[in-house]
Amino acid sequence: MDKAVVLVSGGLDSCVVLSIAHSTYGKGCIPLSFVYGQRHAREIVSAEQICRYYGLQAPTLINLTTAFQGIGGSSLTSGATDGNPSTEAVQRGPDELPPTFVPGRNIIMIAVAAAFAYTHEAGEIYGGWNAVDYSGYPDCRPRFLREMEHALCSGLDRDMIVTYPLVHSSKADIIKKGIANGAPMHLSWSCYAGGLSTPCGVCDSCKIRAEGFAKVGIPDPAFQ
Amino acid sequence: MDKAVVLVSGGLDSCVVLSIAHSTYGKGCIPLSFVYGQRHAREIVSAEQICRYYGLQAPTLINLTTAFQGIGGSSLTSGATDGNPSTEAVQRGPDELPPTFVPGRNIIMIAVAAAFAYTHEAGEIYGGWNAVDYSGYPDCRPRFLREMEHALCSGLDRDMIVTYPLVHSSKADIIKKGIANGAPMHLSWSCYAGGLSTPCGVCDSCKIRAEGFAKVGIPDPAFQ
Repeated sequence: MDKAVVLVSGGLDSCVVLSIAHSTYGKGCIPLSFVYGQRHAREIVSAEQICRYYGLQAPTLINLTTAFQGIGGSSLTSGATDGNPSTEAVQRGPDELPPTFVPGRNIIMIAVAAAFAYTHEAGEIYGGWNAVDYSGYPDCRPRFLREMEHALCSGLDRDMIVTYPLVHSSKADIIKKGIANGAPMHLSWSCYAGGLSTPCGVCDSCKIRAEGFAKVGIPDPAFQ
Repeated sequence: MDKAVVLVSGGLDSCVVLSIAHSTYGKGCIPLSFVYGQRHAREIVSAEQICRYYGLQAPTLINLTTAFQGIGGSSLTSGATDGNPSTEAVQRGPDELPPTFVPGRNIIMIAVAAAFAYTHEAGEIYGGWNAVDYSGYPDCRPRFLREMEHALCSGLDRDMIVTYPLVHSSKADIIKKGIANGAPMHLSWSCYAGGLSTPCGVCDSCKIRAEGFAKVGIPDPAFQ
């Protein structure tokens, strides 16, 4: 197996993950993105630009909109809130999952990515899952990811490695890895506010990104 | 948790599974069906009739067509063959998976079913997965199903039982269980040939069903 599927959303994390996967697999990286009616579809444009930077084809887009609609219950896709995690956090207790939680979203995405990897003869799946930031999603934690890997190997009857190089990293750590790998972070897009040209700078995702660059002590290359 | 999601395709196996789940959960059974462009959509009509027999709502239909299209590579949905497993078997070696194999199909279906169960506050998923017949799909085997259950519990941070009462049963055994439970097998539909009113009687699925009833020694109630 000299190919790997890399989940590329267009955000900062997946940009850095692709730089890591590319250092091992080079042109054997197969980029994959999911579409599910999210409002930050602007990320898809960035995903394509990041892949082109590495000389890769644009990501295959797999549409999970109808699947997620059937499951129901996410403000990230339903438009029920303003999509700003900090606003939403006010409305919930400290131990509750944020309402942008599509239950099992990553379980489904990894299952689909594994099937895609199988048909494309790839033996590894890279993703930017992160258990640190504000998400707290149980399906971003190493324990789940490792158990899912076991299930995939059995269910596909093939070795299928799930790799999550950023799972314990802070945003500053991720940026440092991106710098070390020469990741094209200037092409990545983090804003959840839905604008097309300039990040809003005030949504939680923009703030977390800005704090990360501030901690590292360099300006965000996306604003240069 | 007094509710369970039951995967009801409309076939004989899922009809019997629903009879088993219903004996434990009664009206707490939440039927779920998947749509993915398969040619035997006639099953969906049977699924609804079977659920109505038990006084349940029609199954929620979750559309996986676009997800499976993005993955690619299945004669069961692509129309590339006549869909008759016995014909297809001629074209492959004894150790190869049948070409109707959508890689990871059950992995994806269980992941989606688990997310659906989570939002509907159900703690158990019943399915008619069977490792005996002609399928040989690795994602129908107990080892995978148990590992997937572990992953689901971690990924959802909730107990989520995966129950597969038919996994080691022959078709005759399944029919005997159906008789014992009073399952409405007369409403089930097994034919893959795509007709709407009368099963073809010659496709592999029809043959396996007929052999099962012959072994049990009773006529198929669907033909009465």
